[in-house]
Amino acid sequence: MPYYISGVTADHRDLIARTPEEFREKNEVDVLTGHRVIEIDAGNRTVLVRDLESGREFRDEYTVLLLSTGASAFVPPVAGVDLEGCFVLRQLSDSISIKSFIRDRAPRRAVIVGAGPVGMEMCESFRRLGLAVTVVDTAVAPMPYMDPELSSRVLEKLESEGVECRLGEGLEGMEADRNGTLRRIETTEGSLDCDIALLAIGIRPATELARSAGVELGAREAVKVDEGMHTNIEGVYAAGDCAVTFDAITGSETWIPLGSTSRKQARAAADSMFGAPVDFPGVVGTSIVKCFDLTVGRTGLDEAYARESGFEPVSVSFEARDTPEYYPSGGGMALKIICDSPSGRVLGAQVVGGLASGADKRLDVFAVCTAAGMTTSDLEHLDLAYAPPYSAAVDAPIMAGNLMSGKLTGKPCRCDSSGLE
Amino acid sequence: MPYYISGVTADHRDLIARTPEEFREKNEVDVLTGHRVIEIDAGNRTVLVRDLESGREFRDEYTVLLLSTGASAFVPPVAGVDLEGCFVLRQLSDSISIKSFIRDRAPRRAVIVGAGPVGMEMCESFRRLGLAVTVVDTAVAPMPYMDPELSSRVLEKLESEGVECRLGEGLEGMEADRNGTLRRIETTEGSLDCDIALLAIGIRPATELARSAGVELGAREAVKVDEGMHTNIEGVYAAGDCAVTFDAITGSETWIPLGSTSRKQARAAADSMFGAPVDFPGVVGTSIVKCFDLTVGRTGLDEAYARESGFEPVSVSFEARDTPEYYPSGGGMALKIICDSPSGRVLGAQVVGGLASGADKRLDVFAVCTAAGMTTSDLEHLDLAYAPPYSAAVDAPIMAGNLMSGKLTGKPCRCDSSGLE
Repeated sequence: MPYYISGVTADHRDLIARTPEEFREKNEVDVLTGHRVIEIDAGNRTVLVRDLESGREFRDEYTVLLLSTGASAFVPPVAGVDLEGCFVLRQLSDSISIKSFIRDRAPRRAVIVGAGPVGMEMCESFRRLGLAVTVVDTAVAPMPYMDPELSSRVLEKLESEGVECRLGEGLEGMEADRNGTLRRIETTEGSLDCDIALLAIGIRPATELARSAGVELGAREAVKVDEGMHTNIEGVYAAGDCAVTFDAITGSETWIPLGSTSRKQARAAADSMFGAPVDFPGVVGTSIVKCFDLTVGRTGLDEAYARESGFEPVSVSFEARDTPEYYPSGGGMALKIICDSPSGRVLGAQVVGGLASGADKRLDVFAVCTAAGMTTSDLEHLDLAYAPPYSAAVDAPIMAGNLMSGKLTGKPCRCDSSGLE
Repeated sequence: MPYYISGVTADHRDLIARTPEEFREKNEVDVLTGHRVIEIDAGNRTVLVRDLESGREFRDEYTVLLLSTGASAFVPPVAGVDLEGCFVLRQLSDSISIKSFIRDRAPRRAVIVGAGPVGMEMCESFRRLGLAVTVVDTAVAPMPYMDPELSSRVLEKLESEGVECRLGEGLEGMEADRNGTLRRIETTEGSLDCDIALLAIGIRPATELARSAGVELGAREAVKVDEGMHTNIEGVYAAGDCAVTFDAITGSETWIPLGSTSRKQARAAADSMFGAPVDFPGVVGTSIVKCFDLTVGRTGLDEAYARESGFEPVSVSFEARDTPEYYPSGGGMALKIICDSPSGRVLGAQVVGGLASGADKRLDVFAVCTAAGMTTSDLEHLDLAYAPPYSAAVDAPIMAGNLMSGKLTGKPCRCDSSGLE
């Protein structure tokens, strides 16, 4: 949706993966939009449905039921969040509203509350549309799920793109002018004039229906499911942003709502609902965001969480080229990897790099290595694709293995931009 | 070197990773260039060295000896290959000679014998310099290590870039004009006028010295080494293009000379020579080449070799987008994956895609999955980095897993450019 707002994606209809008509024609699936399930009677396997337009209610039957109610934007309990000009970005309708507002009202000053991935994407979108942008977050760095040595690069990028960053600062309220339109936000540190505000401070699983039906909730109050996407109620399954998942490294229940995971959970749920054996192993926690011309991503555990989970994490941070020195570069990258000291197991990695550096490639390599339970030694021996347009002869994941092995064994291993010495 | 010839890399000195002076200063290593070891006396641990300039010979001692003699370009035994204007591309001096020849003689018509990776890179370099280019190969398709459904795309690209492809046609000889300069090549199908010719039909391990010292040779007549890079002679090790390696999937000895493998073998040999335990597991056979604006690569086994190795290969070929339909694409890609039918194990993959599509990223993901012994089901559950600028929500390796699972289990699974249905 940030790309629709900025105009990279011209038509909002392109964001609709499948319309109700296509579901019918291609998949023989009836999709009732504008209807809400207001009650589940799990004993009789029926649902009570309300047509939101007519108000008519009716019961429908099911053999198996999937809860895929998603998540809602979190709106903090402060004054003024319902003012015209204050938005969240969760539903397609939100993006259409934001785009209309910008077109009709021509706001000049935007405030984004929240310096997470949605906030980063919207910084870029608003700047692209010519707005002055200020980001406010209680965290002391943008992208709070990145470690400081990498998030500092994101901060530099935001500032170089003209984004004002007010970090360590919390939202206290919003104020309108005499026409009832948003004009100012109040923070813990002062106030800030603006014409449009975006609340991008996270989402919450939409589980009211589940809860009222007696469905058990788990991590972060998301619907508790097992590896077969079953809830505690016979015949009721859940998948997507409303459901928990598993951390494939620690085995613990977690809630990491992402579109890529939803797609996998949906397949697993469909198989399970039709009787196939399913063992969805969970995720390693991979995520990525484009912040202007930077790629910012992480996978696996960070040091703090690794320690909490009983590992003995050791990290290495380094810079790597994306191509050899004699070949044009896509901007290079900074990386951090985290391994378990006694076992050498790869626990996670973080990367910030140029958009054309293939930093996303190295992140995916680490994601696979982490999922596979590979060790530092395995990293050193990876047979990655090398030719000058694609990487240096010792590519970043291999260099990470060399450096980490050196650190774990005490074997000296240096590395500079030209590779290992 | 193709990028130096075409001018992407301006100075040939940038291709020298380290000069003898840098070796001395940074690493306290003496490098004698212009010297050849002409004899190894393994019993007394001495070598006989000749200074190629003065002709002086002297003996030197060693405690451990590394054979890293590399490989030489194969020159076929036909008439005229020593003519002025006929080149190979193996040493830095070759690239300097080619560049000088082009500058001084302004050739207009180039013939490249060999449609492998070096041939592909040089097609692009010569075209970039404005030459008419013809490629000749006895194989019926370019990039013979790619399967036909993918190599056909390389052929299309070559033709669209104005490269004439004469496939299924063998070199029979070269002819000069009265000044002794190359003017024509003869093939099994006729003749072809040209002003410059490049022989790019493969390399052979440089093992004369090793053989004369009693060092045992292995696959493809390369120096036989074990997982610790030891040869059969105590105190003598080998690494790089002169040495064999192991196919990490089948465990069999093989010879796949690539710079990325050489770097890893060199580290392993150094550790081993200084007494550290080393177990270099070999390679899965990953390689990549840029052919104009196409990325062409493979990893692991192809179907024929998988079958020879005792697997029961099943393959799936498909097209995948690099980004969602609503986001600008880097050109998409075509993929083929090969799995073992009874176990579901991933055996290999091949990919041809747009240069900006991140086809190299998906290749590296498959390379890691292959090395890790992952299965089709593991592919389906990969937690890869998803955001619209980087991939579709179901990225190509996951889609490969879905399609292969469908094929192996008989579960219907279709896929079109918008993803799975």
